[in-house]
Amino acid sequence: MKNYVDISDIDSIETWVQEAISLKKAPLEFQNLGQGKTLCMLFFNSSLRTRLSTQKAAMNLGMNVMVMNIGSEGWQLEFEDGAVMDAGKAEHIKEAAAVVSQYCDVIAIRAFANLVDKSDDAQEKVLNGFKKYATVPIVNMESATAHPLQALADTITITEHRKVQRPKVVLSWAPHPKALPHAVANSFAKMMQRMDVDLSITHPKGYELDADVVNNVPIIYDQEEALQNADFVYTKNWSSYTNYGQVLSKDKNWTITAQKMKLTNDGKFMHCLPVRRNMVVSDDVLDSDQSIVIEQANNRTYAAQLVLKKLIS
Amino acid sequence: MKNYVDISDIDSIETWVQEAISLKKAPLEFQNLGQGKTLCMLFFNSSLRTRLSTQKAAMNLGMNVMVMNIGSEGWQLEFEDGAVMDAGKAEHIKEAAAVVSQYCDVIAIRAFANLVDKSDDAQEKVLNGFKKYATVPIVNMESATAHPLQALADTITITEHRKVQRPKVVLSWAPHPKALPHAVANSFAKMMQRMDVDLSITHPKGYELDADVVNNVPIIYDQEEALQNADFVYTKNWSSYTNYGQVLSKDKNWTITAQKMKLTNDGKFMHCLPVRRNMVVSDDVLDSDQSIVIEQANNRTYAAQLVLKKLIS
Amino acid sequence: MKNYVDISDIDSIETWVQEAISLKKAPLEFQNLGQGKTLCMLFFNSSLRTRLSTQKAAMNLGMNVMVMNIGSEGWQLEFEDGAVMDAGKAEHIKEAAAVVSQYCDVIAIRAFANLVDKSDDAQEKVLNGFKKYATVPIVNMESATAHPLQALADTITITEHRKVQRPKVVLSWAPHPKALPHAVANSFAKMMQRMDVDLSITHPKGYELDADVVNNVPIIYDQEEALQNADFVYTKNWSSYTNYGQVLSKDKNWTITAQKMKLTNDGKFMHCLPVRRNMVVSDDVLDSDQSIVIEQANNRTYAAQLVLKKLIS
Repeated sequence: MKNYVDISDIDSIETWVQEAISLKKAPLEFQNLGQGKTLCMLFFNSSLRTRLSTQKAAMNLGMNVMVMNIGSEGWQLEFEDGAVMDAGKAEHIKEAAAVVSQYCDVIAIRAFANLVDKSDDAQEKVLNGFKKYATVPIVNMESATAHPLQALADTITITEHRKVQRPKVVLSWAPHPKALPHAVANSFAKMMQRMDVDLSITHPKGYELDADVVNNVPIIYDQEEALQNADFVYTKNWSSYTNYGQVLSKDKNWTITAQKMKLTNDGKFMHCLPVRRNMVVSDDVLDSDQSIVIEQANNRTYAAQLVLKKLIS
Repeated sequence: MKNYVDISDIDSIETWVQEAISLKKAPLEFQNLGQGKTLCMLFFNSSLRTRLSTQKAAMNLGMNVMVMNIGSEGWQLEFEDGAVMDAGKAEHIKEAAAVVSQYCDVIAIRAFANLVDKSDDAQEKVLNGFKKYATVPIVNMESATAHPLQALADTITITEHRKVQRPKVVLSWAPHPKALPHAVANSFAKMMQRMDVDLSITHPKGYELDADVVNNVPIIYDQEEALQNADFVYTKNWSSYTNYGQVLSKDKNWTITAQKMKLTNDGKFMHCLPVRRNMVVSDDVLDSDQSIVIEQANNRTYAAQLVLKKLIS
Repeated sequence: MKNYVDISDIDSIETWVQEAISLKKAPLEFQNLGQGKTLCMLFFNSSLRTRLSTQKAAMNLGMNVMVMNIGSEGWQLEFEDGAVMDAGKAEHIKEAAAVVSQYCDVIAIRAFANLVDKSDDAQEKVLNGFKKYATVPIVNMESATAHPLQALADTITITEHRKVQRPKVVLSWAPHPKALPHAVANSFAKMMQRMDVDLSITHPKGYELDADVVNNVPIIYDQEEALQNADFVYTKNWSSYTNYGQVLSKDKNWTITAQKMKLTNDGKFMHCLPVRRNMVVSDDVLDSDQSIVIEQANNRTYAAQLVLKKLIS
């Protein structure tokens, strides 16, 4: 594996999940592996879990970590080839990526979708810019269209909690006050299609995800129907993909409630966090034993640690 | 000790001070204690001394440190139970505290008073939110009403510099251009009441501290009378507690000057820093041998190191 | 050496360059030297290379690192003696420098020129304030008038790439959309005067550098004439020194192009980065083998590592 930018970089999901579960049991076992090696984390956007869990993962491996908010502590980067840099952007990705590569062994990058121009976001200029011009491995800490560290943590969590070999997994849209990217939903949906699960997706009309992500996964527009007998309810808001970046609905009839969770097979509630309480999901679900969001967040450390371990081995 | 959120968490001041003084003599003696352990420092407000000294203290113990400006690098947290999170706050303290706990062994938090609503500040929503929902120990790096790391450093400093068993200690208000919180004065006053010192407090009328902090400590409204024969002059501005958060006076007759220090028993000048020169205290005091503010700041490291050592032992 | 604030702190350029090249070959050889020692990096301005390379250098030596954006994470400092601090500045350099010194073994500082008042910038209040009041060594990570870590990296790079004992080195001004400081040009020009090179400087009229920097170095106002047979073309924009801080020209006839590089002796293109592509230099130069800017940036690590090694030894 050269980089970890998308879940397609995983050769065997099952093997990875088992390795991550092993790391979780003995997080400091590979402390020597990272000695003298450095992770550089570059943030173009805010972060809490990703920032702390990835840093922790690197330290568990004995790596040094350098964290930088590249926009506020550095300056704006130019990503266009041939640009005449006579305005606000101080450095081209060509130099930035090549230079930073010389100061570390792995570069991790967070750069969200702008949700303004679909094709612009699809180009993943930041992530792909680093991938193209860096000379060390790149880790995606959530890009415009993918969040593969989250999806890896999700699949670890589902593996730990499944009670049947082939659980029913429902990805449900839920309302949110702001327009959110598709990265988490994309990576989760793609990941589940590589696992032995019965996946369906439920959302209001107009919230269809990218067809290349959905493939043949059933879309059910009736949330209650979708939730029937679910073993895992993975909830997430995203903005419209068709009417790109628009909020078409804040309908709280889509909020996941304890009442709705009764339709499931004593299903587990999952969310990548941060989550808007009583918008996306009601308190009575989040505060119940059915919620495994905290454990899910814990697995972010071991997902990141596995990825870093593979990249520096 | 489960957390260090207030000086009431200290079981024996004398023992702690002696332990801190021992750490100061051999700061790296317990380098192995923190191996593989992580301190996460969360800042809701600015910091210089606290940020650096607490970080240094953790590194002296061999701990890893993760520092985060949670407002600017993360997002706003919701602290109200049952809130419908449909506005600016992205994550509830319930999730934030539980999740961050999984990435570290100790969480240290700085969250100042807002000085708008007395009862709101008294609730210490941020500190108590983390205390309630975190699963690892919490350290208070200055909350709305308390600054127990500062008070511990103060008592170490007084112990080191006292020339008599029971020194006379005066806590004096001084003028300042901005409205400041009561945290430092509160914790200092409470700490001194647990030490064998002769404590009095001096300030203009209207600047009375919380009665639960002052207890039976004499309040002397004539600063010069109060300073007579003082061994330690601990100076600090605070805004009015009665007229909550208001600046009632910027009267520079309350500035501590060399002339006033002559009233003392060759007293030592103390301040938690940062200090406004020639407002709170004149240059001729700060630049004299009577000032021990720099040594006082140095003891912040050993106060924090002692607290962290106890919490991870 | 007590501090590294200017290239005049270097006793022997040749020895230093050879030591840096040795460190580059075995960066982790002195991992034990920094054990239990701490570098505190204070940023008053943005940084990418300097932030990461200096941090990396310290970690290569086994040092702990504390990084702080002092303006945004701390508060504004006062540098004037005798100031009545009744406005926006919360702490005097006297306290800040003395206190921070107690938390670390070396303080590194970045504080750019304001480009408003020449004599104010020349006083180097931030750097000199720390130098005066700190009790540990100070490293200049670019001050108002000097960038000695860059100049050290530059001379390492030239030593590595020179094909003749006494190469021809041209420092060329180039256009830029914003007013930039003189620090890099100053330190480079001074450094080259201490090396065995044939140095000349080329820029439009009105862009003369400080006469104390230029000394007897030939100034050639015709860029093409200057570039003839150059072995190294060191390009940098700076604002006018005479009309202090003003942008007198954005004339793209001064942009370094592949066509102009043909005038050189197969010369190497150097720049401290970040560089504005197609303003300062055209893509065809930066993307050619003649450009050594990435290697030059790599040497920032070893320049910083050498300086830190000397300061903590």
